[in-house]
Amino acid sequence: MSSKRPLTKAQKQQYEKKYEKRSLYIPKKYFVIAIIFLLAASSKLYFFKTDCVIPNVDFEQWWGSYPKTEIDTSIRPFMIEFSDIKVNDLKERLLHRAQFAPPLDSAGFSYGFNSLFLPKVLDFWQKEYNFEERERFLNKYNHFVTGIQGLDVHYMHVKPDLGVGDDITVLPILLIHGWPGSIREFYELIPKLVTPRPNQKFVFEVIAPSIPGFGYSQAPVQQGMGPQEVAVVFYNLMKRLGFTKYYVQGGNYGAKIGSVMATLFPDTVLGFHTNTPTIMWSPMAIFYTLFGTIWPSFIVEPTLADRMYPLSQYLRTIIQETGHFHLQATKPDTVGIALSDSPAGLAAYILEKFSAWTDVDNKQAIDGALLHKFSLTHLLDNVMIYWTTNSITSSMRHYTEYKQLWVLDRIPTDVPTWGIKFKYNLCFQPDSILRLKYKNYLHSSIVEDGGHFAAMEMPDVLADDIFDAVDTFIRFHEEKKKNEPQPEPAESKTAETVSAKKSTEPVKKTEPAKKPTEVDYMKAKSVHEFTVKDIHGNEVKLDRYKGQVLIIVNVASNCGYTNVHYKQLNELYEKYSGKGLRILAFPCNQFAYQEPGSPEEILKFTKAKQVKFDLFEKVAVNGEDAHPLWNFLKRMQGGTLGDFVKWNFSKFIVDKNGVPVERFGPNTDPLELVPYLEKLFDQ
Amino acid sequence: MSSKRPLTKAQKQQYEKKYEKRSLYIPKKYFVIAIIFLLAASSKLYFFKTDCVIPNVDFEQWWGSYPKTEIDTSIRPFMIEFSDIKVNDLKERLLHRAQFAPPLDSAGFSYGFNSLFLPKVLDFWQKEYNFEERERFLNKYNHFVTGIQGLDVHYMHVKPDLGVGDDITVLPILLIHGWPGSIREFYELIPKLVTPRPNQKFVFEVIAPSIPGFGYSQAPVQQGMGPQEVAVVFYNLMKRLGFTKYYVQGGNYGAKIGSVMATLFPDTVLGFHTNTPTIMWSPMAIFYTLFGTIWPSFIVEPTLADRMYPLSQYLRTIIQETGHFHLQATKPDTVGIALSDSPAGLAAYILEKFSAWTDVDNKQAIDGALLHKFSLTHLLDNVMIYWTTNSITSSMRHYTEYKQLWVLDRIPTDVPTWGIKFKYNLCFQPDSILRLKYKNYLHSSIVEDGGHFAAMEMPDVLADDIFDAVDTFIRFHEEKKKNEPQPEPAESKTAETVSAKKSTEPVKKTEPAKKPTEVDYMKAKSVHEFTVKDIHGNEVKLDRYKGQVLIIVNVASNCGYTNVHYKQLNELYEKYSGKGLRILAFPCNQFAYQEPGSPEEILKFTKAKQVKFDLFEKVAVNGEDAHPLWNFLKRMQGGTLGDFVKWNFSKFIVDKNGVPVERFGPNTDPLELVPYLEKLFDQ
Repeated sequence: MSSKRPLTKAQKQQYEKKYEKRSLYIPKKYFVIAIIFLLAASSKLYFFKTDCVIPNVDFEQWWGSYPKTEIDTSIRPFMIEFSDIKVNDLKERLLHRAQFAPPLDSAGFSYGFNSLFLPKVLDFWQKEYNFEERERFLNKYNHFVTGIQGLDVHYMHVKPDLGVGDDITVLPILLIHGWPGSIREFYELIPKLVTPRPNQKFVFEVIAPSIPGFGYSQAPVQQGMGPQEVAVVFYNLMKRLGFTKYYVQGGNYGAKIGSVMATLFPDTVLGFHTNTPTIMWSPMAIFYTLFGTIWPSFIVEPTLADRMYPLSQYLRTIIQETGHFHLQATKPDTVGIALSDSPAGLAAYILEKFSAWTDVDNKQAIDGALLHKFSLTHLLDNVMIYWTTNSITSSMRHYTEYKQLWVLDRIPTDVPTWGIKFKYNLCFQPDSILRLKYKNYLHSSIVEDGGHFAAMEMPDVLADDIFDAVDTFIRFHEEKKKNEPQPEPAESKTAETVSAKKSTEPVKKTEPAKKPTEVDYMKAKSVHEFTVKDIHGNEVKLDRYKGQVLIIVNVASNCGYTNVHYKQLNELYEKYSGKGLRILAFPCNQFAYQEPGSPEEILKFTKAKQVKFDLFEKVAVNGEDAHPLWNFLKRMQGGTLGDFVKWNFSKFIVDKNGVPVERFGPNTDPLELVPYLEKLFDQ
Repeated sequence: MSSKRPLTKAQKQQYEKKYEKRSLYIPKKYFVIAIIFLLAASSKLYFFKTDCVIPNVDFEQWWGSYPKTEIDTSIRPFMIEFSDIKVNDLKERLLHRAQFAPPLDSAGFSYGFNSLFLPKVLDFWQKEYNFEERERFLNKYNHFVTGIQGLDVHYMHVKPDLGVGDDITVLPILLIHGWPGSIREFYELIPKLVTPRPNQKFVFEVIAPSIPGFGYSQAPVQQGMGPQEVAVVFYNLMKRLGFTKYYVQGGNYGAKIGSVMATLFPDTVLGFHTNTPTIMWSPMAIFYTLFGTIWPSFIVEPTLADRMYPLSQYLRTIIQETGHFHLQATKPDTVGIALSDSPAGLAAYILEKFSAWTDVDNKQAIDGALLHKFSLTHLLDNVMIYWTTNSITSSMRHYTEYKQLWVLDRIPTDVPTWGIKFKYNLCFQPDSILRLKYKNYLHSSIVEDGGHFAAMEMPDVLADDIFDAVDTFIRFHEEKKKNEPQPEPAESKTAETVSAKKSTEPVKKTEPAKKPTEVDYMKAKSVHEFTVKDIHGNEVKLDRYKGQVLIIVNVASNCGYTNVHYKQLNELYEKYSGKGLRILAFPCNQFAYQEPGSPEEILKFTKAKQVKFDLFEKVAVNGEDAHPLWNFLKRMQGGTLGDFVKWNFSKFIVDKNGVPVERFGPNTDPLELVPYLEKLFDQ
């Protein structure tokens, strides 16, 4: 897993070919754009406004029956129970299941759950699923309920098991499940979050509630509970537990709720991590998406373009996979009756999603490839939570309130946000779109595997990513704090970032007084006038490079471009150092904090990469603290859409006289620089 | 029930007010139009082409298992059976029904079937529904099966009970049910179609098949059966029964199948009658619909505008009521499992539609107003057909092939077509849109009551309308035949129209030789030059009207405008005849055959209306046989969108010198002519 993996040559050609072909349709596409602009104009830009008003939040909204009764607001331990009555009734129903209609010839899962495969699931459930053992398993974490806004809200609370005197900060994180998931989604993930890691100075305390109407949280009696209302309930829950600042993680519906929490409670949510990073309900997002049908590269990185384009194919998939959504948003109670009455029907309804949303191509298989990624026991644990609590109907009703998101997805939030994009997840959106809402969208982790149910399918990857994200969130807040007047003292039990964490972060340690013999980059003519420090801290006057051709590049160890760049820069150096090529690499931590390490750590990394060219001290390349050399480079070679350096591995070519003559972004592989270099060698 | 009922003053004011208000939004609307045109241009008018190619039809396409086996193509009697095993199993399941989730507070049916009302349905089914009696009831008509394209296809065949020597023509009609209906829809309708009527010279022989995969017709084993494929199966079925020409009636999915039959087999389908007259899958229809948001009167009669505008409200209803459609078009097999396993779920799923589609406002009621229009026994008969045959899954699969209609709805057909529009039916389309496909769309019957399931809800109204429609179809073919060289002799057992029917139709009996002292209307200066015949057949020279102000109007007895026009024309005559007003009314049968009667019948009708003004012989006002007077009127006062007379009750005002000076359409009430008349009286 890494971010922004660059294209191979073959991929690039394929990509270009695809979009060359598409250019045949450009006349049509231009019309689409014209239409969009007209639409925009016609609605007086209403759709494109992002200043939607944050809706009023009623923290006391009552969801129970009227007349209101006293509710028990104490925190009470709770045990999951698969009662004998329930289990026997279930077994009876499974035994007396109907004769299901045979599937169409060669249909696989393409018309839905294949009824030839279903008996395998139902037989296992009836005869092999170990109800007692699974009940024990589900009770392995501490469960509680407490009364909030008229409903008993259930949650699991898992604290890390710390040794005495461990110097580690415990950070609260709210994990929010989705539909048709439940708290069961997190059973494999939780241990990975509450276990300290050797290289991390923090660990998590997990709060994983059941959404009201799902599983063990009571269903609302009143109409109108959607993502916003759940967000309020969870805000109240966390407050009840004493948490005023915490991290939030969610996928699917949990991502929507988490996103709304970040929108409504930006001072409470320290960071939002999601494995479903999407803002589907934003007209501007739709506009971007349409715009990308003409100029995909303006919207999405070439490496990821095939996750959303051709748009027709993407939309076909979305339409294909949202029939349940349409039904549940309009008539949840109707289909709920059948699903409450038939465990076979419930299992098929839920498990079909685990097949299709893990990879839509699974529908080709007669078994929906369901058991390739999941064990039947784990899948049925989740179904059991719906069945025994009879909560499928109330869970589906949440879809009737999704329309709220037409407002909420449009309200920007400053809460730092981090997405992880699994390859086969249903919906994909590029960072350019996500930044419409998440003003501090710090990073996307790109995973070339995995689907919609990440916590169950790839808990290791997800856990690693959550640690990385929170590490970054902490630094985000540290940076922010540096730039602000000192705030009030930290509150009890909040996750105000880790004072114990030693500052291994020299990003901006170059204080004004300490700056090297300052050269005025506005007047300089050549890089040879500047002085920098090498990775060991020694001053290096760049006039030593006179008569040599230079590549000056900002590098980072944890970037998607790292591997290819280090490899090809090495190749260039080996091949052309004889002709006078020198490569000057400046580590920089300004892009998604992908160069966080100390000089020693960086050196260790570059040694492993067998880097032979010259490595310098970590610098800032943008902003007020940017190194004068970099300001000079940017002045001499401006960039598209602004001079600032856009990302790691921006490459400047400097001629023998020290004059920057070319500039390339990270999308350009180092080997593509050869023709430019060769011209300069011969000058 | 009548066609095109005119607006009352109050309605008109309300209408004008509504659309005046809407004019505030015109800037936006213009943009919508611009967008539409751009879309049209961008797709090189592809969407707007109506010359889609008729798809290839495979009359032998195999729907059974492979390898193919011999199928029994004989016609075999069939009996519906509610076996004891099935019934006992059903009762067990109903007894052991789950505890269903309680509905949300005050939800009625707005989230789907209300689980508080459901027990009433299930208890009745379990304890009171008389399985033996209903089995006998369903067997009251003759049922058959026969093998077609690899499947046993079931149908009911009901012949009229004719007395010896009855001089009546028997016409075959194919009745096609819909989803979630079945042959049960037609049990009340059939007797009304097979019983001779005193004033009709024909009666029906009904063939009502089960669509393959519904009820007693086997489900296809192969993928791909949609409306087109069903149309072929039914074509083959009718051929097997010896019918090469027949009428087709259908609603809901039956309307789609019937429409496709009219498209693919125009020489076979003598007329298509539908209670769901819609072409939803036509881009041009969508364009018209959007266009109507700006100028509704261009698209839809003012009296009916509120059935489709405001469009946002109409679309909201469509979206609200099509969740099942989306699900069934994508994952029918998944939800099919629950519905096959749970009779409670099946009943809720099916009966919710009988509530919502009979009137969407029914969802306000806790019982969905389900039993206001239907008896529970009748509704459960239909559910029983799905349950005992386990055919809900295969029935739902048809939706996956609806995409065919994007082509088929766009191919025009010449088959005469007649729609009946029940007020609360889900989808409404005006005639202007229907004529895009149905080039001979003869008439819409407007009913101010009734919903989607017309055959069960209002069988009398539907039966009357089918008789009216077929009567008109017959005359359509007679007229067509007159204008064609004589065709080959009629085939056996076809429905070639009724030679026994006496021609009470003098529409075009004015043969060229007989024409009155022909005046060249191109040269005439005054109506006073013309001679016409009065209703008794006597010649009348119009110079007798010199010095008088005239209203010349084409009238019809069966038009929606008839009542108001006769009433107000009488008022005008009474008030202004003293001032010299004369009204010359010319019966005309050219608009939906709404003036079919003989002179005696017309006289009888006008007497009942207390008509005092002058009545003339029935004439043609358009076409080659149009009366010269009318050609003169049209030449002197051309109309919007062409000079031809658009409908009954077009009114020309003629001054004292015989010069036509004004023209008004049927939308203008006669009393609105007063200011124009008064100017002329004083001249």
